[in-house]
Amino acid sequence: VERKNYPALGDPVGPYVHAVEHHGFLFLSGLTAFGSPAQKGSVSEQAEAIFSQIASIARAERVGLDAIAKVTIFVTSLDDIGALRETLLRIYGTALPASSLVRVAGLFSPDLKIEVEAVLAVS
Amino acid sequence: VERKNYPALGDPVGPYVHAVEHHGFLFLSGLTAFGSPAQKGSVSEQAEAIFSQIASIARAERVGLDAIAKVTIFVTSLDDIGALRETLLRIYGTALPASSLVRVAGLFSPDLKIEVEAVLAVS
Amino acid sequence: VERKNYPALGDPVGPYVHAVEHHGFLFLSGLTAFGSPAQKGSVSEQAEAIFSQIASIARAERVGLDAIAKVTIFVTSLDDIGALRETLLRIYGTALPASSLVRVAGLFSPDLKIEVEAVLAVS
Repeated sequence: VERKNYPALGDPVGPYVHAVEHHGFLFLSGLTAFGSPAQKGSVSEQAEAIFSQIASIARAERVGLDAIAKVTIFVTSLDDIGALRETLLRIYGTALPASSLVRVAGLFSPDLKIEVEAVLAVS
Repeated sequence: VERKNYPALGDPVGPYVHAVEHHGFLFLSGLTAFGSPAQKGSVSEQAEAIFSQIASIARAERVGLDAIAKVTIFVTSLDDIGALRETLLRIYGTALPASSLVRVAGLFSPDLKIEVEAVLAVS
Repeated sequence: VERKNYPALGDPVGPYVHAVEHHGFLFLSGLTAFGSPAQKGSVSEQAEAIFSQIASIARAERVGLDAIAKVTIFVTSLDDIGALRETLLRIYGTALPASSLVRVAGLFSPDLKIEVEAVLAVS
């Protein structure tokens, strides 16, 4: 396995690395908008901040967002799911991943409305 | 990566495809009983509807339910877990997968009692 | 796929095996402190019990804890997350995995404060 941190994301602040690669799969840690300007924003604004981080990981790996094979989306409310879906469709374009979405009881900061974990196919 | 939709499941209604394949792994999107006759049924009835969809994906991939490597089971109540376990044992037969089960705060429709995401080993 | 149970963990009590291997990835079922002396302990004590099980699986597979590629951590409270992070950092040493952490609404026993699912890179 190869452990990877990406300078564009800032240092990990906890017991994890940004991503681990094995046999062409890149497992990303759960990403949130924490520490970004969207930290107190809507679920869609937070999703934008999260996929901006995924895009910067993808660039570092010399792949595109179409390398996203699977996402698991944890939200704290289902109220703005319609808007979130629109945002995700725009971000993904035609390269849709496999996806799950569930409402959890909480994320590590009360500001956070969404956490996304992703598996990328990098080779 | 290869993105896959299965006619038997109906068109995806959101920012996802039914499944994505990479290096012999097929990552399925989270499946529910939404839109099936079991949509308002018990957790076991909903589980039957979900695994019927997984079975139809497996058939399309020319594998059996024994190709299920891992499932993550999200339930909204733990009240009928005993019955759910019986149902799953009957569905799996002797080919048990690795599995996690947690109670979440909600799924995208209040009717839903269970969402299952699965990883299949297809080659 | 290869289904695996480990005598050190006791027989699985439900519709699952301890782990399934495919193409060098070992998917572990969600592990908890249920049935261990830590069953009613703090989240950190329960985490110790869980990673002791993962360590025994790793030994059986002739790898170390540095084979852990990804963990998903489900907790029922965020109150003692600081202590949990310290515990995990000590367990992992320098070999940090990719990781997600969410608070769920419940685990299958009210005693349980944490469930961990892990993916190990075994070859």
